[in-house]
Amino acid sequence: MQNSAHPATGIAAHNPQRPSGMPYHRYVPFHEQIRVDLPDRTWPDRRIEKAPRWCAVDLRDGNQALIEPMDAERKLRMFELLVQMGYKEIEVGFPSASQTDFDFVRLLIESGRIPDDVVIQVLTQCRDHLIERTYDAIRGAKQAIVHLYNSTSILQREVVFRSDMDGIVDIALQGARLCRKLEETVPETTVYYEYSPESYTGTELEFAARICNEVLDVLEPTAERPVIVNLPATVEMATPNVYADSIEWMSRNLKYREHVVLSLHPHNDRGTAVAAAELGYQAGADRIEGCLFGNGERTGNVDLVTLGMNLFGQGIDPQIDFTVGGGIDAIRRTVEYCNQIPVHERHPYAGDLVFTAFSGSHQDAIKKGFEHMAARAQSDGTTVDDLTWGVPYLPIDPKDLGRSYEAVIRVNSQSGKGGVAYLLKTEHSLDLPRRLQIEFSGVVQKVTDAEGSEVTGADIWRMFTDEYLPVEDGGADGLEAWGRLKLREIRTRAVEQGATTLEVDVVDQGVEQTLTGTGNGPLDAFVAAIACVDVDVKVLDYTEHAMSAGGDATAAAYVECAVGDDVLWGVGVDPSITTASLKAIVSAVNRAERG
Amino acid sequence: MQNSAHPATGIAAHNPQRPSGMPYHRYVPFHEQIRVDLPDRTWPDRRIEKAPRWCAVDLRDGNQALIEPMDAERKLRMFELLVQMGYKEIEVGFPSASQTDFDFVRLLIESGRIPDDVVIQVLTQCRDHLIERTYDAIRGAKQAIVHLYNSTSILQREVVFRSDMDGIVDIALQGARLCRKLEETVPETTVYYEYSPESYTGTELEFAARICNEVLDVLEPTAERPVIVNLPATVEMATPNVYADSIEWMSRNLKYREHVVLSLHPHNDRGTAVAAAELGYQAGADRIEGCLFGNGERTGNVDLVTLGMNLFGQGIDPQIDFTVGGGIDAIRRTVEYCNQIPVHERHPYAGDLVFTAFSGSHQDAIKKGFEHMAARAQSDGTTVDDLTWGVPYLPIDPKDLGRSYEAVIRVNSQSGKGGVAYLLKTEHSLDLPRRLQIEFSGVVQKVTDAEGSEVTGADIWRMFTDEYLPVEDGGADGLEAWGRLKLREIRTRAVEQGATTLEVDVVDQGVEQTLTGTGNGPLDAFVAAIACVDVDVKVLDYTEHAMSAGGDATAAAYVECAVGDDVLWGVGVDPSITTASLKAIVSAVNRAERG
Repeated sequence: MQNSAHPATGIAAHNPQRPSGMPYHRYVPFHEQIRVDLPDRTWPDRRIEKAPRWCAVDLRDGNQALIEPMDAERKLRMFELLVQMGYKEIEVGFPSASQTDFDFVRLLIESGRIPDDVVIQVLTQCRDHLIERTYDAIRGAKQAIVHLYNSTSILQREVVFRSDMDGIVDIALQGARLCRKLEETVPETTVYYEYSPESYTGTELEFAARICNEVLDVLEPTAERPVIVNLPATVEMATPNVYADSIEWMSRNLKYREHVVLSLHPHNDRGTAVAAAELGYQAGADRIEGCLFGNGERTGNVDLVTLGMNLFGQGIDPQIDFTVGGGIDAIRRTVEYCNQIPVHERHPYAGDLVFTAFSGSHQDAIKKGFEHMAARAQSDGTTVDDLTWGVPYLPIDPKDLGRSYEAVIRVNSQSGKGGVAYLLKTEHSLDLPRRLQIEFSGVVQKVTDAEGSEVTGADIWRMFTDEYLPVEDGGADGLEAWGRLKLREIRTRAVEQGATTLEVDVVDQGVEQTLTGTGNGPLDAFVAAIACVDVDVKVLDYTEHAMSAGGDATAAAYVECAVGDDVLWGVGVDPSITTASLKAIVSAVNRAERG
Repeated sequence: MQNSAHPATGIAAHNPQRPSGMPYHRYVPFHEQIRVDLPDRTWPDRRIEKAPRWCAVDLRDGNQALIEPMDAERKLRMFELLVQMGYKEIEVGFPSASQTDFDFVRLLIESGRIPDDVVIQVLTQCRDHLIERTYDAIRGAKQAIVHLYNSTSILQREVVFRSDMDGIVDIALQGARLCRKLEETVPETTVYYEYSPESYTGTELEFAARICNEVLDVLEPTAERPVIVNLPATVEMATPNVYADSIEWMSRNLKYREHVVLSLHPHNDRGTAVAAAELGYQAGADRIEGCLFGNGERTGNVDLVTLGMNLFGQGIDPQIDFTVGGGIDAIRRTVEYCNQIPVHERHPYAGDLVFTAFSGSHQDAIKKGFEHMAARAQSDGTTVDDLTWGVPYLPIDPKDLGRSYEAVIRVNSQSGKGGVAYLLKTEHSLDLPRRLQIEFSGVVQKVTDAEGSEVTGADIWRMFTDEYLPVEDGGADGLEAWGRLKLREIRTRAVEQGATTLEVDVVDQGVEQTLTGTGNGPLDAFVAAIACVDVDVKVLDYTEHAMSAGGDATAAAYVECAVGDDVLWGVGVDPSITTASLKAIVSAVNRAERG
């Protein structure tokens, strides 16, 4: 049908798509480069039933792909996060290539920060002086994985190493032999090994098996000391079923298989790293290396969060806790801080928009799903939290990740005016941060659900005012004033290169008080000041902008706060930028108390 | 090995990973919900050899997943982009659900904007009044695909429709029959059909086949008028090989198969939409629906750019031109404008970082790869552009997408404001307002033009520091301190609903002074204070942001000022938001005086 000569256009009888003119002829299909032939594959009939061994490589592969690599403080935050989440194998650096990495490995060891059941892993090329330096780095650790690699692909052999297969094998064997010899220099340390034929996906399978097996002959895997053979998709070169075939082939052709931990390390050049990891794991791998939220070279390493949560959604314990520190959002904030790269709005499980439904029919189905669960819970005499999850369009319960479900309504799609954020921006000069947009749209949704009617721009503004700006504007538009705290007067003193001291007159639950606090700025000082009246606030994010041109312009401040266990936004509007930002904190505090 | 009782920790003999404590027991594995049994599958042995029929659903599925749905102008930009790129089937809206969508479809038809070889597609639920409205929308089009859907999953039947299988089939058949009847109301239009059993991935395969086949009986597919059967992963529920099995099963069990266009519509909840599309296409599908850069509900639709470029990298013409308007970056800008959602740094083919290598060994191999290609071209008497691509770590030549290869972040006079702003944001957490970006790129330009060399990230930062932050950071990096004003101490007092009084100790041209001013905020008061020493400043615009999470974070303030007759920006960085903004004014004043 697609190739018939029928003259019609459209979908009938004939595909009207045209040649693109792009130079696709410059590229050789993967199967013409590497033969992967496994007609008796078994992996498509297998299912994943338990978590693999995880290895987090954020501090090495992830870090080396940052424009600005992490400093020691960020590295420590990342290391501690990974440990808290439950990762037991953590690649902490490439100490022979970077003094910063070397120093960080030493810091971990010398400060005793590595728990007994956590193994650090360090990467090294197969070159004598680099291997020696690597052993210097791990000295004194209780245990460590030395991760040895050299490039094996057809392309790298030709272009980079200008060597034949024997030459490439010699590089690996010489490295492995030196490693064995250097074990005596670190008598306190149990040394394990990982070997990677780097650029494995561009390597003939027979050659990959040969080099791994010869290296294994030198490293002598045993039950007590298995060796990790890691098969990286250094560059993702084919559909993920081809990677899975190659893994199953390797698993059948590796020597000492029962003492080998077969490891995957997929990159995401074709956007299928998660699939490659899952299918490769079905194909016989034991272990997966990746990074949180898929950081890493170019398009990134495979995302450990998505892999773990994919298991979770199938009723399998990921053996990683994705709620440490309060939930996936807290993990995300730490990772964004360490990497200085945002997690995308549509990133599985963690993006701002992934538990949000905008379409009316989706919202309706979700609502019915929640009602149905509540009814089931009631008739079973149990709670929703103990029931099997089943809500349309929500693959998992966002609460299980410490997130909430936020249905966002398209307020003005009928009138053609655009939505809530557009309205606040054009009519009220308020440019809401994205997460605040989502939060407030939930507020609007609640009202429209309750009242069952279309809302006008004036309604939206009234809702916004009542929700975020009640103290200052109480009484206007017939809204009642509410809220625990109210600002009266603010006095600050900031010394050059020093602290800000702040004295603030507030009304707290109707009582006038003067509070004082010190910090590195007025926000910080104010948080300290209100801690005196047992208000527990942490500022998570902050932005502020002028609402119009001119030095006499009013400023709008937005602050995302953790107030006790709640994470929520506050908004402050004031001619003074300082007062606006303090009002924003007050707004968040009052909203939290309102519940 | 993994389950042995050996007491060692680490990788030896025993997996030390612990139970996460997360409530995974709330989830039922997919295979216990839906049986997909195809041991004689053929798709793992097949390879993709030509482009599928593409259908771009950015204007419907993509649009309905935006916080701010596109207005008519944005919709037109998106439509024109899709047409230019070469998409021949474009789902343009859900006209019966939204007046905006209805009006847009009418606009396309009445303004004659639909090329003869492009078919618009409109979505409708199987409800009489919605179908009637849909036919009103397409009247006068030369051809259109009416895309009819109803939900068929176990969950939706139980929770949303409270109906048995027969009832669900009746909904579809009644809709299909009404469509056939309404064809006579649009005599100028060739109507084609698409039917989607929505929530297909949660539907028993036998039932999915039954409902599709009964709908096909009504729609009567022929060679001249085939019918599209679309099998959406409305929610992605299993590994992509399972989706592929289900597609191959359906392909074998659909009636009229030779007149059916089997279509895929994967979502990305598990991060494997691209894989699901590719494996499903291998399994016998003819057509793929998706969005540019993977926009769409929640985690998005499958990404048409990645799918197309994956073909390209295998030597297959995607039949879509990913270089229209100057290259993938131009396409990306238009899509970001239409969706108001950024494309992530690590997004395959289009992200800012995906052709960038930071590691020295990668850079070295890439360099050798380029040299090798140049040598090959010379010995073959041809150009590099005509050679088969082969450079380590670069799966395709960035030039083929109109992009350049950046081994390190290098900013030169060609790279314009985008590069500089990117660098300041990622390396220094400074998010410059657009007009300041433009101003500063002029500063960079002047230096690079004068010195005629490439500048590094460090050079940029030096220039930025010297230009905007000289007083505070003078002396660092060998930069000379300059500037008329310098802040020493700031004292403020703000009364509720009243004025801010500010007292500031400054050094003005080397002389210590205390100035006072009053205004409606510290900026305004400071402007008044420095007027006492004949500095004439007016603040035109102002933004400020935290440079990282946390109440103790440093703030960056940007102030656009008129200083006398000059309009220019100042920047201030300080832990205190107040001090940062005053520093920004000082920066602008000092820059104006420097001239």
